[in-house]
Amino acid sequence: MDNPVLVNVTRGSLTESRHRGSLAVVDSAGKTVCALGDADARVFPRSAIKALQALPLVESGAAEALDYDDAELALACASHNGEAIHANSARVMLIKAGLSEADLECGPQWPQRMEDAAELIKVDEVPCQLHNNCSGKHAAFLGLAKIMGGATKGYVNPEHPVQQEIKAVMEQLTGDTLTSDICGTDGCSIPTYASPLRSFAKAFAVFGTGDGLEPGRASAAERLYEACVNEPYMVAGAGRFCTEVMEAFRGRVFVKTGAEGVFCAAIPELGYGVALKCDDGGTRGAEVMMATVLERMLELNEDEAKAIDRQVNPPVKTRRGAIVGDIRPTADFLTALKTALG
Amino acid sequence: MDNPVLVNVTRGSLTESRHRGSLAVVDSAGKTVCALGDADARVFPRSAIKALQALPLVESGAAEALDYDDAELALACASHNGEAIHANSARVMLIKAGLSEADLECGPQWPQRMEDAAELIKVDEVPCQLHNNCSGKHAAFLGLAKIMGGATKGYVNPEHPVQQEIKAVMEQLTGDTLTSDICGTDGCSIPTYASPLRSFAKAFAVFGTGDGLEPGRASAAERLYEACVNEPYMVAGAGRFCTEVMEAFRGRVFVKTGAEGVFCAAIPELGYGVALKCDDGGTRGAEVMMATVLERMLELNEDEAKAIDRQVNPPVKTRRGAIVGDIRPTADFLTALKTALG
Repeated sequence: MDNPVLVNVTRGSLTESRHRGSLAVVDSAGKTVCALGDADARVFPRSAIKALQALPLVESGAAEALDYDDAELALACASHNGEAIHANSARVMLIKAGLSEADLECGPQWPQRMEDAAELIKVDEVPCQLHNNCSGKHAAFLGLAKIMGGATKGYVNPEHPVQQEIKAVMEQLTGDTLTSDICGTDGCSIPTYASPLRSFAKAFAVFGTGDGLEPGRASAAERLYEACVNEPYMVAGAGRFCTEVMEAFRGRVFVKTGAEGVFCAAIPELGYGVALKCDDGGTRGAEVMMATVLERMLELNEDEAKAIDRQVNPPVKTRRGAIVGDIRPTADFLTALKTALG
Repeated sequence: MDNPVLVNVTRGSLTESRHRGSLAVVDSAGKTVCALGDADARVFPRSAIKALQALPLVESGAAEALDYDDAELALACASHNGEAIHANSARVMLIKAGLSEADLECGPQWPQRMEDAAELIKVDEVPCQLHNNCSGKHAAFLGLAKIMGGATKGYVNPEHPVQQEIKAVMEQLTGDTLTSDICGTDGCSIPTYASPLRSFAKAFAVFGTGDGLEPGRASAAERLYEACVNEPYMVAGAGRFCTEVMEAFRGRVFVKTGAEGVFCAAIPELGYGVALKCDDGGTRGAEVMMATVLERMLELNEDEAKAIDRQVNPPVKTRRGAIVGDIRPTADFLTALKTALG
């Protein structure tokens, strides 16, 4: 199945590049509200499901035992910029579990922004694993491993109890069966299981509403949702879609990006979850797709509209800052959404 | 027309992302040897045609008058990393024309690689226009403007004599008529005219052979071709496709990347030019496409095969360096090339 072109990149009066994609909007009962492209193909969710991967930490009582606060729980769900505030918070999460940077198995990564990289360079440092955009998630995995007892070493391996717990949660929320043949290794070395977008959308509808979950898991989902919308800076950082949109929406939506053009959202007031993938893995395509879905599905106040407008139609600029094109949803995308959403 | 999927990105045993594209291989008489996807759609060539944009500099005698050497001519055709050697060479080109960094109109840009950015940060500097990947091209434009007489200021504007000269050359080599409605502004502020891939492929066949050109222009093309293949480090820099492939091929091919997934090549021994575009603008897709075309069109020696193998099938790695997938040409792409090229 050929997924449709959902986003165009223009220059002057011509379209310069195109992003195809697929998406699913599903309610907590699993009913599809809208599907564009192939919503049944298996897609690696990558970092878009970090909030779901954090459920065992909270549900088990480990988060409470370790005294993780909202900012730290948000960091557990984050793909952060590696700013000092993010790296320091990951360090504190590890200290609370009696562990350190050396226990992480995610590998090092330069901070996303040059100004944060410069802070390291100026003091002759190189980035460590705390700067990895996944360090909060990994600190949370280690915290859970510590509270569960047994070895913390090897917590990234599919057979480790932490990854087995997460797999069980993902199977419940997606309704999918996760087997080794659909398992890849994420950039931070943990297993990532490919499921249909439809299944991830359902999982986020459930995450945002708690519908059908046993009380402990529903309460863990609510705790993590609240942590992220209360501390959106910890979920990403300066200049980032997830941070800016969650700041403006003040609890109305949860949004989370993943590598290779995946984007997921939970919209509790509608009872919907959203999952989408830009075919080519492009972040700019996925961001315009998600912003367009949010814009078309929700009545927006001024702050929300301002935050979404920036993401629906970002400019293409020269290195002197002149606007010479833009990134925008295609007319077909808008028509398809209108048809599906009414 | 839907362009075919030419490149897959895998993770574990699944395809994670896909790159569609179109390409044309054309001889210097304009006969199409191979066309995949829509080779007639207009595409902005961006930086892939810098070597053609440098023709007026050499043909006019300006390059000789300014005493530009091979390295400087290669830099005029470059999208370089902004390493010290590139920035310094651009500075010398300007000095030779009695000009300075302040005369550039390309805007500043951070060096491509963190280690080069770090050299600036350590001495409390920010990048200047010399670090812009296009600084050599802009220095060459200024050099030509100076020798032509008249104003150097505004040399990036479509109506400036330098840009008019370049437009005339592009019209001859592509056989296309370039009008304002197909003109966009490039990231470095100069005009970029969209033509079909078929036309750019023909232009590079002519560039590599000189076929059909008046002697002065043919000799300018030969001079620029030789400069780039003699000084491939100046065309891009450390770790870059254009540099590594031209180093290994020792004059057999000229290759040049452009923004938004454009890639062009000249293969004089076959009399062919190549132009391709990755639909979504992805560099990784365009690189695998170009490497695949070169691999299938030429008998390769050991060094050439080694350089191409790295580009045809690059690994996808975790942040700890483990290989967990790869980028590769699709089976359909290989079949189509085999059918077209025999």
